Formats: sequence, C-alpha cells, structure tokens
Amino acid sequence: MKDFLIALAQWPVVLDKKENLDRAEAMIIEAGRKGAQLCVLPESFQVPYELSLLREQAETEDGPTLTRLRKVTAESRIHLVAGSFSERRGASFHNSSFVIGPYGEVLGVHRKIHLFDVNLDTLAIQESSLFTPGERPLVVDLPFCRLGVAVCYDLRFPAVFRFFEKAGVEVAALPAAFSTETGKAHWHLLLRSRAVEYQIFVAGACPAPNRATPYVAYGHSSIITPWGEVLRDAAEESTLLCAELHARLLADVRKKLPALRHRREDLYAKWG
Amino acid sequence: MKDFLIALAQWPVVLDKKENLDRAEAMIIEAGRKGAQLCVLPESFQVPYELSLLREQAETEDGPTLTRLRKVTAESRIHLVAGSFSERRGASFHNSSFVIGPYGEVLGVHRKIHLFDVNLDTLAIQESSLFTPGERPLVVDLPFCRLGVAVCYDLRFPAVFRFFEKAGVEVAALPAAFSTETGKAHWHLLLRSRAVEYQIFVAGACPAPNRATPYVAYGHSSIITPWGEVLRDAAEESTLLCAELHARLLADVRKKLPALRHRREDLYAKWG
Repeated sequence: MKDFLIALAQWPVVLDKKENLDRAEAMIIEAGRKGAQLCVLPESFQVPYELSLLREQAETEDGPTLTRLRKVTAESRIHLVAGSFSERRGASFHNSSFVIGPYGEVLGVHRKIHLFDVNLDTLAIQESSLFTPGERPLVVDLPFCRLGVAVCYDLRFPAVFRFFEKAGVEVAALPAAFSTETGKAHWHLLLRSRAVEYQIFVAGACPAPNRATPYVAYGHSSIITPWGEVLRDAAEESTLLCAELHARLLADVRKKLPALRHRREDLYAKWG
Repeated sequence: MKDFLIALAQWPVVLDKKENLDRAEAMIIEAGRKGAQLCVLPESFQVPYELSLLREQAETEDGPTLTRLRKVTAESRIHLVAGSFSERRGASFHNSSFVIGPYGEVLGVHRKIHLFDVNLDTLAIQESSLFTPGERPLVVDLPFCRLGVAVCYDLRFPAVFRFFEKAGVEVAALPAAFSTETGKAHWHLLLRSRAVEYQIFVAGACPAPNRATPYVAYGHSSIITPWGEVLRDAAEESTLLCAELHARLLADVRKKLPALRHRREDLYAKWG
C-alpha cells in the first residue's frame, strides 16, 4: 500500500435519474481536482433504493450510466468504485458495483452476494425477489492498494472479510444504503469492527437521507482507520468526503497488535 | 434458550490472592441470592494480570482455588464461568476458564487459544512466553442456553465465533482483562459487533481498574443484546452486574434480520 487520497461522494439520491448522474459526475470531477486517486459512490446512486425503480431503471454494462461514468473517470484520471446500480444481464438483474480504472476501463465488478430480505420494525424488503446474487467478493489490485469491494448487506457477513483477509486486502470499499433504523444501530459499529478485526481501512459510502422517498438512507458515509477510528463522517450532508490514507498507519497497527499473524489456521482447519 | 438472569462480577483485582477469592466467593453467593442462574468472573481474577504472578500463582485443576469455587457454586446452586486463572498441567501452563455446574461439577474448560503477544503504545506483553494455547473453543449446553466461552484476546478472532455459530451458541461469555488502551479503543466495539454479527447475547467480564498495579484493566464489564445494545455496563465500579436475558429478544432479532439463515455456505466452501 502507498499513501493516497480517497473521496466518498454523498448526496440525497432523488427520483430524477439525470440529476443523480449529474451529481455523481460533478463529484468525480471534484475528486480528481482535489488529487484523490480513488472515488467511491454509494449503493443505488442512480435512483432511490426501491425495488420497482431498480427494476424499471436497470441497465446493461454498456448502458448510458456506466458509459458516462467511464468517460468522466478517464477524463479525471482517477479510479472509481461506481457505487451500485441495477444491472441487467439477459433475464437476470444484479445489484452491481463496477470498479473503473483511470483509462475508463472496467477493472472488475462485485455483484452483491447477500440479498437484503428483512422484516424490520420500519421496513420490509425482499431484494431476492428482483436480484440474482453474485458468487464471489471482488478484490482488485490498484497501483496504490489492494482493494476489496462489497455492497451494503454483505458487510454483515464475516466470510466476505475472511475472503478479503486471505486475498491480502488493505482497503475495503463498501457502497451501501443502510436504512435509518439499521444505520443508527449498526453502521459505524460494523464498519469499525471490520476495520479492527481485519486491520484494514474501511470506506463506507451511503446516500444522504432523502425524506421525500419511502426508503430513507442513513447517510454518514465514513472513512475508518485500521485501529477503528472514524477519520471522517459525512453526517447527513451533501459532500465529497476526503481523507488521506497512510500506509504507515496500517503497518503500525499490524505491528503493534499482530492479530493477523496470530490466526491459528492450523487449528481452524480442524474445527470444520 | 430460556429467559434467565446473568450476573457478572467486577472488582479491582489486588495483589492479595485471598482477598480476591473472598470477593469472588461473596459475589457468587450474592448472584445466587438474587436468583441468577449464571455467574461470570473476569480473566485473571486471582492475581493481577502480570506474567510473573501468573507463573508463581499457577494451580492445578484440583488446587485450592477451583476447589473453593466449586464448593461455593454448589452451595449457591448456580452455574459459574470461573473467569480465568493460570492452570498448571504437568510442565505446561494455560490461561484457563472452567465452567462449573450447580453440583460443583466441572462442565468444561476453555483454555485461551490466542495468546496476547503485543507491543502497544502503553504496554508490551508476551503471553506465549508462559502459556500453552488451547486448541478448541468451549461450547456447553446449560439447561437455559447454549453457552460459548472464550477468553479476552480470543474475542478478536472471527474463527472463534464462526465456531460458536456452527455449534448453535446463544450466549457468549468472555472473561477478559482488556487494558485501558485497548479497552477504550475496542472493548465495547468488539463485544457489540460479535453480538450483532452472530445474533447472540454477549457477556464480557473484566476486572475493575486497579491503578496500583502495572497492568491497569479497563473494567466496563458489559452485557450486550443480539441487536448490539449495551444492556448493562459496570463502568469502573466494584459491582455484581445483573441482567435478565430474554429468549424472545434473540428470536425476534433472528427473525427480523435473518442474517444467519442468509449465510451462503455453498459459496463460502468454494472461496477456499
């Protein structure tokens, strides 16, 4: 890992798809101007998180949304984790997060693996009624870090991060759209504990709350150190949240508390 | 799982071993009187956490400490997670947590698996210079819950809780002695995130800080719900921390956010 500037784009996703794409584009350009090497968009940045809209506004990989984002990413000479949008592939739909390189090339895609089928106090949703799950977390080697990508609900599943650990991930990008209810209860808790237990930087990008939509996202996009500190928190603002990630900090944490080296894989293999 | 009252004993462990055993005994009796069915002592409840003392004061399973605790546990008709003490077995030493049943019988023992070899800002320690690690986390079926036991640094290792998950654990008891430094940074974070990601009750028992000893424990023994809420926190007090654990709450959390059922073991097996 090398030191680099990361930028998380947060705004309240609105019904007008064009307006969201304009916001995303402007923030990618701003990130490039500020010298960020990696920009992360939230889950469902195109349309408010709602299954009917996600079905209606689904696009293919070569559709207008990704084409536009690839172009601006190349112009800004930046790397982009393109949050997530509803991807149509033949008859199936996926909640897909594309990673774009500085020439506009697609470096990889994470299709959300764990689908959000819940009956919370404030919300019931069956993501699996629309989406087909992905089969493997995405790990990409960038020039400045090894990056792991997972989407929202995937954050709750330890196996995803065990996979990242084995792959040597140093920074995890989490496009998400936690709800107000689960956000208050678990957003910082889970981002911080993943950072601590796997000794990685964690960047979670969430839309700002839009109280005019049925599903109100939590906001609070955050950048977390490997010691579990909240380096930046966007609260409910529309903002490009930037932080310099220092390779030295990651190395220091792994040295002073070498929990990764203390794994007992020899024993774990016997535990089944 | 059935509803039951849990009691965590917290006091500042002092140099006088007899005084600590008197405190432990009095708190077990108090727990019994209050109707608690399970009492949990902290890590290294006999002597302050310091390798020279742990070597010097090590005892065998049939030594005076466990003999005394078995007697009082039987008299109080309670279950006991006997924190941890330095156990001598032949030539080897272990950081051992015995679980005692209401007839004074030994139901199992968890020998700390992950040894604390660290160089923190405020503290350097090499637990492996004294202790031999255990090889398997302990899971015990009690009449009112399936209990998992792990000790302190084990809390940082996801594999321990994956083991608990596969074994159907509902309540995890964590005798610990987090330091002030790691306690402030990570104690509640890790207890709460384990509770949330495995949807279990978590009870972490730590000695109260004793600023007259070189190693100052964090205190803050805590009882956490499966939703990650801190039900009780002992702060720095000398106290028996009690809470009723409701089976219904565990069932409700697992129903409204069925993350355990959403595990994709079929995929994980392919990830290696």
